[in-house]
Amino acid sequence: MGESTKKIKIGIYGGSGYGGSELLRILLFHPNAEVVFVTGNEHAGKPVSEVHRNLTSLTDLRFVAITDDLNELGDIDVAFFGLPHGQALELVPRLPSGVRAIDLSGDFRIDDPAVFETFYKKKHAGDLQKRFVYGLTETNREAILGAEYIANPGCFATATALGLSPLIAKNLVTGKLIVDAKTGSSGSGARHAANTHHPQRVNSFYAYKPFTHQHVPEIEQHLRSLGKLDEPLVFMTHSLPVSRGIFASCYAELERDTTTDELTGIFREFYRDAFFVRIVDGSPDINWVKNTNFCDISVHVSGRNAVVFSAIDNLVKGAAGQAVQNMNLMFGLEEKTGLVFSGSNP
Amino acid sequence: MGESTKKIKIGIYGGSGYGGSELLRILLFHPNAEVVFVTGNEHAGKPVSEVHRNLTSLTDLRFVAITDDLNELGDIDVAFFGLPHGQALELVPRLPSGVRAIDLSGDFRIDDPAVFETFYKKKHAGDLQKRFVYGLTETNREAILGAEYIANPGCFATATALGLSPLIAKNLVTGKLIVDAKTGSSGSGARHAANTHHPQRVNSFYAYKPFTHQHVPEIEQHLRSLGKLDEPLVFMTHSLPVSRGIFASCYAELERDTTTDELTGIFREFYRDAFFVRIVDGSPDINWVKNTNFCDISVHVSGRNAVVFSAIDNLVKGAAGQAVQNMNLMFGLEEKTGLVFSGSNP
Amino acid sequence: MGESTKKIKIGIYGGSGYGGSELLRILLFHPNAEVVFVTGNEHAGKPVSEVHRNLTSLTDLRFVAITDDLNELGDIDVAFFGLPHGQALELVPRLPSGVRAIDLSGDFRIDDPAVFETFYKKKHAGDLQKRFVYGLTETNREAILGAEYIANPGCFATATALGLSPLIAKNLVTGKLIVDAKTGSSGSGARHAANTHHPQRVNSFYAYKPFTHQHVPEIEQHLRSLGKLDEPLVFMTHSLPVSRGIFASCYAELERDTTTDELTGIFREFYRDAFFVRIVDGSPDINWVKNTNFCDISVHVSGRNAVVFSAIDNLVKGAAGQAVQNMNLMFGLEEKTGLVFSGSNP
Amino acid sequence: MGESTKKIKIGIYGGSGYGGSELLRILLFHPNAEVVFVTGNEHAGKPVSEVHRNLTSLTDLRFVAITDDLNELGDIDVAFFGLPHGQALELVPRLPSGVRAIDLSGDFRIDDPAVFETFYKKKHAGDLQKRFVYGLTETNREAILGAEYIANPGCFATATALGLSPLIAKNLVTGKLIVDAKTGSSGSGARHAANTHHPQRVNSFYAYKPFTHQHVPEIEQHLRSLGKLDEPLVFMTHSLPVSRGIFASCYAELERDTTTDELTGIFREFYRDAFFVRIVDGSPDINWVKNTNFCDISVHVSGRNAVVFSAIDNLVKGAAGQAVQNMNLMFGLEEKTGLVFSGSNP
Repeated sequence: MGESTKKIKIGIYGGSGYGGSELLRILLFHPNAEVVFVTGNEHAGKPVSEVHRNLTSLTDLRFVAITDDLNELGDIDVAFFGLPHGQALELVPRLPSGVRAIDLSGDFRIDDPAVFETFYKKKHAGDLQKRFVYGLTETNREAILGAEYIANPGCFATATALGLSPLIAKNLVTGKLIVDAKTGSSGSGARHAANTHHPQRVNSFYAYKPFTHQHVPEIEQHLRSLGKLDEPLVFMTHSLPVSRGIFASCYAELERDTTTDELTGIFREFYRDAFFVRIVDGSPDINWVKNTNFCDISVHVSGRNAVVFSAIDNLVKGAAGQAVQNMNLMFGLEEKTGLVFSGSNP
Repeated sequence: MGESTKKIKIGIYGGSGYGGSELLRILLFHPNAEVVFVTGNEHAGKPVSEVHRNLTSLTDLRFVAITDDLNELGDIDVAFFGLPHGQALELVPRLPSGVRAIDLSGDFRIDDPAVFETFYKKKHAGDLQKRFVYGLTETNREAILGAEYIANPGCFATATALGLSPLIAKNLVTGKLIVDAKTGSSGSGARHAANTHHPQRVNSFYAYKPFTHQHVPEIEQHLRSLGKLDEPLVFMTHSLPVSRGIFASCYAELERDTTTDELTGIFREFYRDAFFVRIVDGSPDINWVKNTNFCDISVHVSGRNAVVFSAIDNLVKGAAGQAVQNMNLMFGLEEKTGLVFSGSNP
Repeated sequence: MGESTKKIKIGIYGGSGYGGSELLRILLFHPNAEVVFVTGNEHAGKPVSEVHRNLTSLTDLRFVAITDDLNELGDIDVAFFGLPHGQALELVPRLPSGVRAIDLSGDFRIDDPAVFETFYKKKHAGDLQKRFVYGLTETNREAILGAEYIANPGCFATATALGLSPLIAKNLVTGKLIVDAKTGSSGSGARHAANTHHPQRVNSFYAYKPFTHQHVPEIEQHLRSLGKLDEPLVFMTHSLPVSRGIFASCYAELERDTTTDELTGIFREFYRDAFFVRIVDGSPDINWVKNTNFCDISVHVSGRNAVVFSAIDNLVKGAAGQAVQNMNLMFGLEEKTGLVFSGSNP
Repeated sequence: MGESTKKIKIGIYGGSGYGGSELLRILLFHPNAEVVFVTGNEHAGKPVSEVHRNLTSLTDLRFVAITDDLNELGDIDVAFFGLPHGQALELVPRLPSGVRAIDLSGDFRIDDPAVFETFYKKKHAGDLQKRFVYGLTETNREAILGAEYIANPGCFATATALGLSPLIAKNLVTGKLIVDAKTGSSGSGARHAANTHHPQRVNSFYAYKPFTHQHVPEIEQHLRSLGKLDEPLVFMTHSLPVSRGIFASCYAELERDTTTDELTGIFREFYRDAFFVRIVDGSPDINWVKNTNFCDISVHVSGRNAVVFSAIDNLVKGAAGQAVQNMNLMFGLEEKTGLVFSGSNP
């Protein structure tokens, strides 16, 4: 930051959903951040704390509407986008020059236009895409440090890619990777819907989007940037009856027989400098990472079969927390500034 | 029934919500019932099991649309109405003559037109209301036996009125009754809404409609039919993060000092012939009545202060189960026919 | 049964846990069953409904203690064992001759003594094992019809084996099978423990016993009885924050490219006569099978990759329900007698 | 603090339970606190993060055993006691002189020895009790500022007393107060027990300890210190199937007719300087205060009937958070130092 008293001026586009809610929860208390405005078209004029009632008495901010000229909303250093897929595609090109951007949607995660259009049914960003860096902080730190624009990873993608990156980067696996991923209901967003209707969701567990989840191409693209991926990822998403949390069980065949201890050591080494990745014994548990920016990982090996378990809070490390982690790097702050939430027991 | 082989022919108006779902779960397996049709306007033509997936492979019924001439839907002995408030008011007058009716909505529960219109914002049924009997089975059995039309009690009203009836009927209390009632999320119905959005509901508990819940007048009217009610009921409703269940904590001042044992004895005697009311020790628990037609009640006394705890499944004893209990009586069957669900542990 | 009035006389050894609880919930209402006694050593003398409070007013049975001479407890046709692993091993040899047995524990599921001793740390049953038939009803119906003794499958094993049996029996797969299985907390039994402490379990999801769950050998043994299993099963168990339900996601590589429709058709044909297996579209959901004896299955295919989703209630189809299904067959009753619970919505 | 660099040196007696867990979560990140030691007899020697896995990588502290000479554990300014009832009674007299104490148990909350002995079955502290100040911060701030020892209020007592204090202090009520209180499962502590066994608790709601909860005398004593309490409190406790949160519904008869707006105004004025009490519209919700030190309150009036709804996190404002709030005052810090947790949505 140069001077510790100078604060990063922040605009949040799309602050009424859960991504926006978490950005506010983090940034309003971040020692080097100042939230200049937060948009929420359907709530324009309302106090932020009327929508995010947890913030009652903690902020006087009100939602504003997005204007045609984005300059009108106030001078900012960085814009966060917490909007539905497709909207950042329209807004980023209209940002005042010099304003950096961190997009929490999928709009800028995929380099290949054909793949993007297949999964997102939108026109690809084209040349603009080249200015975006994929924000999986732990594996992409160097690029993020100098980035102008960040495509923040998806929640499933974060849990999965952090679990698989050491295997691919160290060239340890052969054959097909299979990922069985599970998410809490907040992954469906702040709008109520049939699949988040409490009377049914509370006693349910089911799979959805078999083989076709839109995070698959972003995970594959990222893994291929680290090493060799022999076959397309088999990736299956399921719905958990909890509010927060993602748990990914990743199955791999190793090149050679190894042991749990040996593979654990490789993971510890790989994430040696990653404060927010904790290699744990036994199994991670979404209970221990909820409300935090941590990704807890454990590995187990039997002969040449390995499983990696990876747990995050989908809204923190899987969205707003990682976005702020990336902002910290982009602005020369320590990576964990404003992000050390300890979780709780219970 | 006269002949054991003759079945009651049933039409269900409004079978796509949770009331309808529970009517189907019960009536499809009732030894003396035959469901002739079930309406569900937005699902007309669809298999019932596509909406109520628990019924997959258990029924070939399809939803039909309500017709202008109700005769067209098929010959029936009794019509159940599981429709939103206001619709049975329109439909009951159009029923073929000789067809009995059991309405699960609030349309016919209130005798006083002014009170009805205040709480329901609809025009009162007028003379038609006189043909309706209030279907709180345990306290109204004689009238139900000969009834043409039944106004089935509300879920909160059932738990509360069963808890308070012995106190009022035996003239044991003085002063104000205070009821603190709590309901599971299925009480909000099958349509998703903000207050049943799982990510928030799952960790929540809150009050709603303070002093103004529409079940208040129906409880007061019923208690006044049994005895003296000194003052208006103080009645407060709260939302529980479970799918099913109502728990009412009812506070009363007794006319004189008494003991827990004595009051328990009075309750046992009052409900001596009521198979579905169980007087228990300690506290009832919604866990033990879920999916059943039981109402579990316990009482505790300290000097002249008494508390009655009452627990039901809001969709069974609080709706569809009690409706079938009333049908059994109306058609000369044993009250518990087709209704002995044992609950489960856990 | 020959005569419809003659009832099967039943003794339940171990009736205080969740397996026993479900046996009672089913058998007390089974039209052809009479529960003669139920043991529960620590509760001997207590009414059954004091432990299983859902049964209040539904039974006068009291728990009895196991006697040295098993004849003393009363004449029975069949004994159910719902005891911790190891106890049925001691008791079955002491059964009066002519009494059949259905064991819900793992004591008699494994034919190979070495495998059994590795996983269960008990001495294998030896010759006695040969008198046991593995009770996965849908794939073993003929043997069960004439069985003297039944080893009822484990809950994870039931969900998994029903999901994988068509693939193996029809010789459709190549290479390794990977199963990612999840269970509700009732799978841990009725005794409270650290991993079922509500404050933590309610927001948790985690894996346990990686690669080493004791249901692995029973699944492998059963699959090998149906066809060729190329490699050891990779089987991972996880804990869900619901009370009831198992969901297994089974990953397989097919011998050749196929389609979801084609594989769905093969599964429908395989389970054509299986009332309790329902092949569904999309995904099964534990919400739709809870409290029922159904196993809901769906399949999805992408090229040569297939996934099978399988959902059961761990205590019903995964334990007591399947046990009664087997009893029905053993005594010449229709398989579904007393077992048609419809589940509920919600 | 005088110098901002000087930290309050803290010892935690009893750090393995949920009270200790929350003290650690707060104090390890408190800018003016240094945790010198934390005891946990059964875990002595173990890393704190092995028990409180949320703290993995956040602290190197290890549990120590309590020594006969309390001086041996290290120099401290203040001792927190998070031990089972009865243990602080033994330990406080052994504290090195000059060390202040904050006790989270009930050992020093009751002034009247006879009342204490009735509810706690322990011998009263006698003269030592006079050195304790009751730590309901918002109503007792002046006394806390100069306190040597603090008896931190119970969780139910905090929610209830904050809800009722304005009514009593302003002499607004007549007759009996009735409180219907509900708590999450973490109120039962970190040790698993039958009433926190997940398979049952997750679908349950029930009452316990009718009329006899040990927080009654502490609430009455506190309210009497503020004004007139006509009759003994009617206080009923219930168990909610959530991990965290207390919700109290408090029923009162007002001296005269008033309105919701008027009473709301009185509450706002009463808590004008209380950062951690938020007077809200509609109803508070435990969802909005979970993990925070806030107490959210709303009031509703109908004629002379009033209801006050009060919601807290039982482990924060109801235990560790309020304890630290009191420490802040005792050591001249701003009351909210280290305590501004914003909660989250969802």
